Amino acid sequence: MSETLSDIGEFGLINRIDNLLKQEGLPAEGTVLGIGDDAASIQPKEGFELLITCDSVIDGRHYLSKFMNYYDVGRRAMTVNISDIGAMGGQPLYALVSLGLKSDMNIHDVEDMYRGFLSELNPFHAAVIGGNVTQVEESTFIDITLMGEIKTGYALRRSTAKAGDAILVTGFPGEAAAGLELLLHTTSGNIKLDNPLIQAYISPTHRAREGKAIASSGLATAMIDTSDGLLADLAHICSDSGVGADLYRKNLPISKSLKEDATMNKKDPYEMCTRDSDDYELILTCAQENVEKIKNIIHKISEIPITQIGTISEEREIYNWVLPDETKQQFTPKGWDHFIKKGS
Amino acid sequence: MSETLSDIGEFGLINRIDNLLKQEGLPAEGTVLGIGDDAASIQPKEGFELLITCDSVIDGRHYLSKFMNYYDVGRRAMTVNISDIGAMGGQPLYALVSLGLKSDMNIHDVEDMYRGFLSELNPFHAAVIGGNVTQVEESTFIDITLMGEIKTGYALRRSTAKAGDAILVTGFPGEAAAGLELLLHTTSGNIKLDNPLIQAYISPTHRAREGKAIASSGLATAMIDTSDGLLADLAHICSDSGVGADLYRKNLPISKSLKEDATMNKKDPYEMCTRDSDDYELILTCAQENVEKIKNIIHKISEIPITQIGTISEEREIYNWVLPDETKQQFTPKGWDHFIKKGS
Repeated sequence: MSETLSDIGEFGLINRIDNLLKQEGLPAEGTVLGIGDDAASIQPKEGFELLITCDSVIDGRHYLSKFMNYYDVGRRAMTVNISDIGAMGGQPLYALVSLGLKSDMNIHDVEDMYRGFLSELNPFHAAVIGGNVTQVEESTFIDITLMGEIKTGYALRRSTAKAGDAILVTGFPGEAAAGLELLLHTTSGNIKLDNPLIQAYISPTHRAREGKAIASSGLATAMIDTSDGLLADLAHICSDSGVGADLYRKNLPISKSLKEDATMNKKDPYEMCTRDSDDYELILTCAQENVEKIKNIIHKISEIPITQIGTISEEREIYNWVLPDETKQQFTPKGWDHFIKKGS
Repeated sequence: MSETLSDIGEFGLINRIDNLLKQEGLPAEGTVLGIGDDAASIQPKEGFELLITCDSVIDGRHYLSKFMNYYDVGRRAMTVNISDIGAMGGQPLYALVSLGLKSDMNIHDVEDMYRGFLSELNPFHAAVIGGNVTQVEESTFIDITLMGEIKTGYALRRSTAKAGDAILVTGFPGEAAAGLELLLHTTSGNIKLDNPLIQAYISPTHRAREGKAIASSGLATAMIDTSDGLLADLAHICSDSGVGADLYRKNLPISKSLKEDATMNKKDPYEMCTRDSDDYELILTCAQENVEKIKNIIHKISEIPITQIGTISEEREIYNWVLPDETKQQFTPKGWDHFIKKGS
């Protein structure tokens, strides 16, 4: 029979995790003290700010352990956090992992989850330096706090977009949400896990390398990730910056897979691209004269497309679709929100 | 009807929390960017390390919302984390609060929880600089990451106790666990919430001010908090330092309330003091010649007792009770462990 948490206990598990991290993880620069004391300790580098984010994912809500192995569950949970550090332009460095696990959970699954974390952290020479394990009766949760560094003054905020700026977005937002829909609404025998939309959900990619390069250039004015959905997150930029946005629907980056899925399931691909979220692309703004420079920066390090989808306008929180004949159609962006009653 | 999370949604809740923090919280030195972006940002102080800890509490497991108001729930959750920073000798500064909440939770209860956080943070001029809210179906959880600072090189670890050192403990360990027992095993109509043991559980106190003063003095060799129980945590010090301990049972700090409870419920007060945990006292070690100096440091800032309960010995992980006739009785420390099957 496979070993479970109730066989080895909290301290047994912590030892196993500690060994795995020592063998398969990389040390993060500046770590004074990692796992194994009341607190971890780091020695921050002079001339750098520290960025800190936390995000939790819950089984059945933010990931689906019935369709995913724990390696992918771990990757997804860490990606969500790396995306937040990347959206400020930072370099991920130190993670603390707080787990709520059921006592019958298989130790190998916990180890696979940590391998998933490491597969995302190791490329940055970032490390798990602490955490916590507690027992839950119902849904497993993974709550990660991730810290990163950025040169003082270089962090890219939401609140600093300017009227006239171009609005750019990386990749193909909406693919992961479409993949999730397929997982949830296809009879289980018919699910094709190699479908690119389902892969976009199971193995999402952050854009932290791209975010860091953009921030280092000093050419962008604001940046955010698309974790709440393209329009909802653009609305965060506009609301915090006191500006509005004119968007060109025909420019929206809609992938071939998303188009095919929309046709097959009689959905609106523009809605799918702009409303739903479960992928971690970047939205950024910059002066028009810097658009090509930023595109070149991205193209040098990455193959992902980066697309101008609109322009920041002066009218505070006014959103327009700009139609092909240049007339404007005002709309209200809506994104996913926890807790809100459906239909309210 | 009272307003619930499903009425105002995630973003509504975040706005409410943000306003509450602005009105009732204090800004923490070094905060560049607080709540409201992809990540928070801090500018660390030169010559200081940053300490980071995280701890989660779950309703029904680590706190009991049926006996506690949410202000006390918030205080308890923050105290657990402040205790960890204090046990390293640090000054708490920045908290990130990750909540798993049910959609029918009352907004006022969430606000009271934050007031509980602030009641513990404000005395340190520490602030909530970020967090996350997600929906859960079952048990509510509160997962806090707390960061603190300490002068470079001054953090007190578990792994640095030396043979011959005195072993000191603050306060009266075991009171909170005894209070929890009373809450769990008394018929609800008969619970006296003003019982000092029950109060020790509901409103535990960290020793972070004392911990900081001890670390600043440079006189202690190792320190830890009693979150796993007096003996289990002393065992962490011994195991990590490669030493053992001789303990004097008669010196154990057993409060009048604990003694009375032990008599009334036919329990062993020594077991209650050393085994169970739910309070956040400090265990520290220091050279014998520094015992009085450390006691004086504590007495200057606090009324809590600090008691020498034993001596560090050379024998790695060997634990003895020293009897009144100076003979030794070896024992194995056991502490509370999540997940382990009862009876195994």
